Parts: sequence; structure tokens; C-alpha cells
Amino acid sequence: MPLRKSLALACAMPLVLLSAPLHAEDDSAVAAVIDEGLNRNEALLRAQDLMDRIGPRLTNSPGMRKAEEWAVKEMAEIGLSNIHKEGFEFGRGWEQVRSDVWMLSPRPIELTAIPLAWTPGTDGRIEGEVVVAPMSKKEHFEAYRGKLAGKIVLVSKPGTGDEPSTAPFNRLETSDIAKRDTMALPTYDPHAIAEREAKGTLVRGDFTLALDEFLRSEGAIAWAKISYRDGKLLHGSNYTYLSGRTPQLPAFEIAAEDYRRLARLSRVGPAPRVSLDSEVRFTDDDTKGYNIIGEIPGSDPKAGYIMVGGHFDSWAAGDGAVDNGASTVAILEAARILKATGAKPKRTIRFVLWSGEEQGLLGSFAYIRQHIASRAGEENAIPGAEPSFWADSWPITPKPGYSELKAYFNMDNGVGKIRGIHAEGNVAAESLLGKWLKPFASLGAEKVVSGSTSGTDHVFFQRLGLPAFQFIQDPLDYSARLHHTNIDTFDHIPADDLRQTSTVIAGILLQAANDSATLPREPLPKKPVETKPFEWKYPDED
Amino acid sequence: MPLRKSLALACAMPLVLLSAPLHAEDDSAVAAVIDEGLNRNEALLRAQDLMDRIGPRLTNSPGMRKAEEWAVKEMAEIGLSNIHKEGFEFGRGWEQVRSDVWMLSPRPIELTAIPLAWTPGTDGRIEGEVVVAPMSKKEHFEAYRGKLAGKIVLVSKPGTGDEPSTAPFNRLETSDIAKRDTMALPTYDPHAIAEREAKGTLVRGDFTLALDEFLRSEGAIAWAKISYRDGKLLHGSNYTYLSGRTPQLPAFEIAAEDYRRLARLSRVGPAPRVSLDSEVRFTDDDTKGYNIIGEIPGSDPKAGYIMVGGHFDSWAAGDGAVDNGASTVAILEAARILKATGAKPKRTIRFVLWSGEEQGLLGSFAYIRQHIASRAGEENAIPGAEPSFWADSWPITPKPGYSELKAYFNMDNGVGKIRGIHAEGNVAAESLLGKWLKPFASLGAEKVVSGSTSGTDHVFFQRLGLPAFQFIQDPLDYSARLHHTNIDTFDHIPADDLRQTSTVIAGILLQAANDSATLPREPLPKKPVETKPFEWKYPDED
Repeated sequence: MPLRKSLALACAMPLVLLSAPLHAEDDSAVAAVIDEGLNRNEALLRAQDLMDRIGPRLTNSPGMRKAEEWAVKEMAEIGLSNIHKEGFEFGRGWEQVRSDVWMLSPRPIELTAIPLAWTPGTDGRIEGEVVVAPMSKKEHFEAYRGKLAGKIVLVSKPGTGDEPSTAPFNRLETSDIAKRDTMALPTYDPHAIAEREAKGTLVRGDFTLALDEFLRSEGAIAWAKISYRDGKLLHGSNYTYLSGRTPQLPAFEIAAEDYRRLARLSRVGPAPRVSLDSEVRFTDDDTKGYNIIGEIPGSDPKAGYIMVGGHFDSWAAGDGAVDNGASTVAILEAARILKATGAKPKRTIRFVLWSGEEQGLLGSFAYIRQHIASRAGEENAIPGAEPSFWADSWPITPKPGYSELKAYFNMDNGVGKIRGIHAEGNVAAESLLGKWLKPFASLGAEKVVSGSTSGTDHVFFQRLGLPAFQFIQDPLDYSARLHHTNIDTFDHIPADDLRQTSTVIAGILLQAANDSATLPREPLPKKPVETKPFEWKYPDED
Repeated sequence: MPLRKSLALACAMPLVLLSAPLHAEDDSAVAAVIDEGLNRNEALLRAQDLMDRIGPRLTNSPGMRKAEEWAVKEMAEIGLSNIHKEGFEFGRGWEQVRSDVWMLSPRPIELTAIPLAWTPGTDGRIEGEVVVAPMSKKEHFEAYRGKLAGKIVLVSKPGTGDEPSTAPFNRLETSDIAKRDTMALPTYDPHAIAEREAKGTLVRGDFTLALDEFLRSEGAIAWAKISYRDGKLLHGSNYTYLSGRTPQLPAFEIAAEDYRRLARLSRVGPAPRVSLDSEVRFTDDDTKGYNIIGEIPGSDPKAGYIMVGGHFDSWAAGDGAVDNGASTVAILEAARILKATGAKPKRTIRFVLWSGEEQGLLGSFAYIRQHIASRAGEENAIPGAEPSFWADSWPITPKPGYSELKAYFNMDNGVGKIRGIHAEGNVAAESLLGKWLKPFASLGAEKVVSGSTSGTDHVFFQRLGLPAFQFIQDPLDYSARLHHTNIDTFDHIPADDLRQTSTVIAGILLQAANDSATLPREPLPKKPVETKPFEWKYPDED
């Protein structure tokens, strides 16, 4: 058993034993949730409305604005209280209007391609020879100097096709879940943090801008990268959303098969000619991103609140269905189920749809800064930039909301049914979480594991020691082919999974809001001791 | 052991035992083939040239015409003899010039869609509401009468997404191959044949034409069907290629995700508006399809010939790489290897690239009628129509070529490495085939199985009792996502598989052409006895 887990367990046990069993009244309330959630579930219809009619929700895009209005209206129809938007500085809005990419020679074919997010359109049709010039860092630029004038530059290594020899669609076996019940020892390497900080927190957008500047100075007319998935899947992700940091050259993602064909033809020569015609729209009327919040107020104003959240924003290639529209719809449906069953929670239940997650958890980060805690050094943060909030600066100072938040549950693992809860290293919380899961064991949701997940909106809460969790969900084909792609559409939401998910969330929230016990917290982080011996490096080593 | 196999074995054994072992000279020749094939293989470069530069080869399309010229030139460069094209009546040429399909409302997005082969363009942009009207037979038309005027009709059932829970990319385990070593008993049901014949041999094109006529009479402006694979894959297959049988309404295949979105939005209303703009080109200057033939002449003019073939035509959505460009390239490479090693076969080796396979094995059927055999009733065949040649009419009359053809090997199972040979029920041939495979056992090609394969160009040869075989190949992702799709491109040809395949073919051909034994034949088919009791049916039962 890892060190931190055994220590934490020693502290947590008494708390758990003191937690009261559910009263008969609570049992009935959970039964009502299950009845409403399984027999009169509305999530699928709401998912269809959001994904089919509104579609992609790139942060601050016109589509996201429509979706925000939609969410506020849905929350009102459900009967939530205190519905409001909380803005945070983000950057520009952007949407694709149309695009059209052709290989003209040696034979005319239309290529599967889209503009990269937050890059400009072509301002009419442009045409040129392609040249393959793989570049992944600024040091690579020099090799291509003087060779790119008038060209459409293919900046990715083409690679070769993949061999997809595992099943794209999966459900978790019990043994898969058991493997997550281990906790990695925490690490603390201040040198690594310092190096990361020195590179800046906008690394991804930085390279795009440097590339744009280099290619312009060389007279290139546009550039393209390869899709990172085979099979005509596209993503379009790119990070140049801050005002004043917009590239000037049009940039595209080309489907792997089409990109590699261009590269192969270039190699044997003559290089193919390609034509590009794209129109995009930047919007700057409102540079704020918005988290959308609604509540079921608790009967005890001093009892604090339980929060559930998931990011509402998506990339622009698909309809943002399994990442993460379905989760937000499940959250709204959990709210509806609770309202429909007349739930009267002791603690307030807060439902939050985050924005800016895809650009670095910006929405949940803004919430933390506004409500939860501040940290030394945060005054240097660039508004809208990917946060370095939990870097190596101390102390962390809690705000009043720090103690009011009794539990946060995050949803951002696709749409597969809930199989349990990741305790995210807060092993002291496992018993109480397990108790709340009990009514849903026969629906497949029963296991609490110690393991952590990363890369989404519970992370900053968890790093503060708050009880912040992510559900264990069947992965389905989330990672294999849907995550950020042009086929992330309503089609790939299994109806029964969505029904189970929304029902389980409602039940967990209700119990968390009513239990006489509250979840144990990890302590507020203090500066740790270095966990590894210092490693010497060569001057050019990364 | 199935009946037919044990009988055949009883006849075949003596023949096999009489076959001579390879002479030392032959062993050296095979060693030279392996050296040339593995160390100086040119198939990959040739595959790249064909797939990337020329691309799709729909029968009789301008692309196919370019490819035919290419193949003749390649055969000449390789040094084959008697290079010629053999024409057969096919129908119209067709190619897609460009197409552009948009959903206009409730939000504008470009849909992934292509025109169906051999359907007309839109003659400018057309626009209308979609209506979902699933129809799979003429009896369904009546339900939609009066409801389709001005509409774009979605004629497929939308269904829901699939759950791809098996790996797309596979290699055969020994146990998978062993399962193929069984032979199904032959069946003979003259009533079933008669019913099939009564429906005609153009069934697929017939329904398209009936649908086209019905929709026109109702005032619909276009129609579309759903792709039969998820994940934005497209096919575009359609069978209205005969002159005088061209539909009048534009018809499209729409990617599953896009089609289902239209259908869902139609159901909740208002129905989406869609705009279509496509340009296609019909060519009628030459209505013949062409098989392309080249030879390495044998030293003994009376010893007959060994033939290898694969279809050269493809569908139009992709570049026809694994179906079946790679196989034809492997065949050309086998020829090159044999020429490069100075092989002097006793029997002539004939290399054939078939056309019209995708429309019903038309090229190999034409070859049969011209060279191999005729059959009572064939005078009623419609030129270009899917053959009913092996229906219930007797007798079959061999032509001189019938005895001259000593073996036919077909390639149309993707590009996976050769693992063995399907004896296609000719169990008497298994020993000799096994002997020829022996030098390639360590390359993974070693097993002869009794089982049969269907649906490609060896079938009509095999049904005549000729020794006609198909290789066992690793399936890779042929069926899962490449067969007939828009991602059937060069990317999905594993280089080492192509190298192995072309080398093994060369070695098998060389041995088959030089062995002192010839492969045993099954007898010329005679009218069989009914194999099942007659089954009574309801009047409307299919």
C-alpha cells in the first residue's frame, strides 16, 4: 500500500465510522430518483437538441454563445435557482464558415481538411505547390530558410498509417477497475517546475505564432499539419485565442490519408499543387468566457454546498457530444430528476457548466480564483492563458468558499455508464463515497478506487485538498476515435448509458447533500520536500 | 470429413504421389525468386504510383482508362510478352468532378457526402427540405405517395451508431486458418435458382431505377442513402452503369453521422434544408471494359498455361488500394521478379488484371465465355449484366482453353501477407499446392485448406471444375474499414506484407509452371440431384 494512502486511512477511519446510515426518508428519496431517472429520463432528447441543433461550442464562439443561452433557459425550465453566468477573461471568438481544400495536380481531388481554430481564412482562393518541411520547434526553422516562398508548407512528419489492433469500443472489466485502485506517490521536483515556467504557460500557442512568423518572413502562403488520427478524422485544435496573438497565415489540418498522399507525391515529384479557400469569422464583442451556474438551494444555509460540473465547451470539428456535451446534459438531467422528485437537500447542490476547459481548464480555474483560494504569485498570471496556478509558489490562502464546498464531482470521461468513483488520492473519503454508491451497485456503479485522473476540471480543486472526484465510466470509443474529432456527434451516445449516468449522479448528489457526515478533506497543500535526487543534464537536454 | 472431400481424396491420392520432387535447378530458381523478391522488391513504389497519382479506377471511368494505359506500359517495362487488352461489353463511363452538400438549417454545416456512381449531377445548386422515407423495395413506395414533392428524400433507415468492439486490424492465428480447413457440402436447389432468375440479374440496378422513377413522378428533387459504415466513411457504390439505364435524379451517399443528424432533426422538426451541388461526367466513347493480359511464354507450347489474376477496377470513393490495387501491383511485381531472375517456365505464365469485378465479376466472366466454356442458355445473357452463367441450364461445353488452363490463382483479399491457399473444395489438389508452398513456410505461408471463398474472379473458373484458387491472406483492416471506402488509400498497405505477397506469388507461379505434375481437376459439372426436400412457402414469402 503506498505511503500516503496508509497515512490517510489512519486519519479517516474514525470519521467514516461516525457517519450516520441513511434514514428511511433518504432511502425513499433515492428510490424516487431511480424511478424518475430510469423511467422518465429526458437526457437523450436534451442531448439531441444541444448536439444536433446547436452543435460545436468552441469557447467564446457564436455557437458557444447560443449554447450558453440554451443552458440558462434549460436550467430555468428545470426550476433551478440562482441561475447566473460567471465571466472570466478569455480571448477571441472564432468560427469556421466554410472551407474547401483541393489537390489540383497530378489529379483533382477534394481533400478532407479544416482550418485550425483561431487562424485566419484565406481571403479568397489561394493556390500553390506543397512542400514537406517537418518542424516541431523553432530550432528546426533554419533548415528550411529560402525554400518556402510561395509554398503551402506541410509542417508535420507524415508518418505511415496505424494498425488499429485493439477494439475501439470498450467497457471496463472488474479487473480493469481494480487496477485503478492504487495511488502513485506524489512527486515534487522544483527544478522541473521552474523549467516549465521559464518556457511560459502559452507553449502551444507560442509555437504556432513563431511558425506563423517564420513562414510569413519566408513568403509561404499557408501551412498545414496532419491529423493525429487516421481514417479521415479531423480535430482542428489550436491555441492562438488570446487577443493580439492571432496568426496571419491560413493554417489547416489535413486528414492523414490526404496529407500523406501529398507528401508521397512531393517526394517523387513534381510536388502537387493545392488550392485553399476558407472563410472564418472572428468575434471580439465579448472576450469573456462564461461558466454557467444553477442551484437547488439547501435547507441549511450553513451546511455548505455540493457541486457537480463538466465542461460545456468543445472543439469545433464535431458536435462536442461525448466530449463533453453528453456529460453536461447528464448534469442538467440530474438536476431535473432531483427537482421532479421534490428533493429537499440540506446542503445546496450547485450545477456548473464550465467554459474554456479545452484551452487549459480556464473556467474551473477562474472559479477557484474567485471563490476558493488565492496563491502567492498569481498576480503575474496572464488573463486567458493556461494557468500555472499550482506551480511552486507558497503559501496558498483559502477564501470563504474553500470551507463551504463540501464535495465536487466532475464529469469529463465520455458518456459511458458510471462504474464507480475515483477518490483521486483522497483515500479517507472512500468509505463515504462507497456508501453513496451502494444503491447503484445493481446498475453497475459500485467501486471506489484510490487512483487519480488528470486533465480536467476537478484537478485544481483536488490539488487544494478539497474533496473533488471524477467518476469511473466505461470508456466506450471516447479515446479511440471520438475525443475532439469530427465524428464526436450524437450518434455515439448510447442512450442507456446516458440514462444510467444521469440517474446515478442525481442519487450521489442527493446523498452527499443530505448525509450527516461530510467528506474528509486532505490538508491544504504546503511546500513539499523534494522527492527525487537532483539529476544533472547535458546543456541541450530537454 | 465431408462426403465430397473423402471421395475426391480417394481419386486424387495417386496423382499426388506421382508428382515429382523439384529438381535442384528448380530449387535454385525459387531461391533466386526469394532473393529478388525480398531484397529488390519494387511493388511499393509501383503501388504508390498507381494509387496516389492515378487513384480510383471505376470500371470504364476516365481514371480506369489511364490505369489501363499505365498497366500496359508497366507490363512492357517488365518485359512481358503477348501484352494485350481483351474487351467485353460493359456500359457507361462515369466520374465525379466535384460535389458539395450542405445542411443549411437549423445551422449551416458541410456534410460528408458523395454522388452515387452512375447517377447524374445536380446541374447547378439545388435546395430543398429533407424528408425521411425509408424504402427498400417497390412495395414501400405507396406509403409515401403525395408527400415527396420538392423534397430531398432520405431513403435509408437511419439506425443508430455501431459499437465497434472488435479490433479493426487483425492477423490470422493458426487456429483461424485451421477453421477454414473444412468443406461445406454442395447444395442444389433448382427452385431457388428459378426464383432468382425470375427476378432478373440486374436486381440492384433495377431498384435504383424504380426508385428514381417513383421519386421523379412524385416531384422529388434528389435522394440520398446512408453510408453503411460509421465514422465518416463513404462508398458511393451503385449499379446503374448500363447504357439506357441511367437514373435522372441526383443521388448521394451521406456519411452516417451526417445522415442521422438530418433524420433526427426531421423527426423533431422543422425538417432541415439541404443544398446539393455536384458535377459528374459520363463518358460513352467506349462502352467496353478491358481485361489486361501479359505473359511469360513457356518453353513447351503444348504444356498449357498457369494464370494469376486480380481485379484492377475499384469503386470511386477512395484510391482502390487494398481493394484491389495492391493485389494487381503484387501480380505485376511477381512478373517482374520472375523476369528479373531469368525464369524459363515450361508452361506459359499469364498475368491478368480484370475489369468490371465490382459490378459482378464481369471481366473474368467474359474471359470464361471467350476462352474456357459455353453453357446452354447463355445466348439470353444481357451484355454487361451481372452473369447468371452458372444457373440451372445444361450442358456446359468446354472450349479449347478449358484444358490449356492448368491453374488459376486469384488475389482479392486485401494486402495482408499470404498465409496459405484455399483449395476451394478441390481437395485432390492440396498436396501439390502444399509442396509449392513449402519454400515459403518460414515467411508465414504454409497452409492449404479445403475451404472455399466467394465473390471474386476465381469463382466461375472453380465452378467449372478448373483448379482455381484464392490465397489465404491476413485480413488486416480490409473488411473493418477499408473495403470500398474513401480511406482505401496507399496508407493502409503495409510495405512488408506487399513484399512477402509478391514474392510468394512469384514462387508459386514458377513451381506451378515447371512441376512435372499438373494439378488434379474436378470433373466438368453435370446436373446435380436436389440436395434438400422441397419446402412449401406462403404466397408472400421471400
